[in-house]
Amino acid sequence: MNTATTAGLLGKLAIMVRSQLQSLNCSVADTLDLIGEWWTMLIILEAFLGTRRFDDFQRNLGIARNILSTRLRKLCDGGIFRREPIHDGARRHEYRLTEMGLDLLPAVVALMQWGDHWLRDDQAPLVILDRETQQPIPRINVRAADGRELNIKQLLATPGPGATDETRERLKLLAEKLTNHQSRT
Amino acid sequence: MNTATTAGLLGKLAIMVRSQLQSLNCSVADTLDLIGEWWTMLIILEAFLGTRRFDDFQRNLGIARNILSTRLRKLCDGGIFRREPIHDGARRHEYRLTEMGLDLLPAVVALMQWGDHWLRDDQAPLVILDRETQQPIPRINVRAADGRELNIKQLLATPGPGATDETRERLKLLAEKLTNHQSRT
Repeated sequence: MNTATTAGLLGKLAIMVRSQLQSLNCSVADTLDLIGEWWTMLIILEAFLGTRRFDDFQRNLGIARNILSTRLRKLCDGGIFRREPIHDGARRHEYRLTEMGLDLLPAVVALMQWGDHWLRDDQAPLVILDRETQQPIPRINVRAADGRELNIKQLLATPGPGATDETRERLKLLAEKLTNHQSRT
Repeated sequence: MNTATTAGLLGKLAIMVRSQLQSLNCSVADTLDLIGEWWTMLIILEAFLGTRRFDDFQRNLGIARNILSTRLRKLCDGGIFRREPIHDGARRHEYRLTEMGLDLLPAVVALMQWGDHWLRDDQAPLVILDRETQQPIPRINVRAADGRELNIKQLLATPGPGATDETRERLKLLAEKLTNHQSRT
């Protein structure tokens, strides 16, 4: 079975898994629904590195042309890339990250830094520098408004404006469980 | 076809796509190889919210038991979760995030914030508060060592200690292309 067939089947079968995700009332599920395919995040990383042309994405990622084509179409439809003529009236196009796509930078960098540390023993293939100081950027962290680094125990999940009754109920149960657990220990 | 069959086929077919990823010398590819499956990031998010028991993961995510079981085993093998007896000598277990798993917090929060903003018009189902101030945490950003927020144009990708010759060559080509592009515009 070649990669094209594999990808086609993956796509069809994935619809059944994905339909479950949509019922979860969760932004992480929505996000994975749009960008949570193996190749997609790598295409976005490649674009952050400066790649714009179909043939360059194809060669650099070693991805089959039809898979790349499908993924780029989905990313354009989803608003993450825009397709622009290389010059006026040209038939060839470039793929450029939109504002929405560029805004994935913190997530991509966080995933990369995590992989560098935990999967590669800090032997990073790529190091990201601050152009101004030429120093590596520090680890991305969750911070408070005043800049303090926060770990999971310093955070609290509460229902937001988009919470369904189910989300509210679940957060209430989790909070109660946490309180019981803390009072027992 | 039920979800279990779907998941089994997805898993088998995915191996062929995944084998390509491993040749990419890229920490994002490595990371996606470990956590880049639809359900995996959601299981991790659920754990961050406080879920520890198999039955709770199963009910809260609405995931089939065999899929959940496979994913949790992979996550334990990969070092992201550890399996602990609920009390001494108990047959039942809890799944707890390890230090490696907890360190995914910035990536999970970055994906959630992106989804809240771009896919839900800022109508977040979940809002994460700083426990101390009870204020929502701000957007996670890429920052310089001195705290300045950095966008993609203020960053520079250079070969790191784990770079292969191919990575070096590609970064050199990208840098040249960027310089040519800037001198033309």
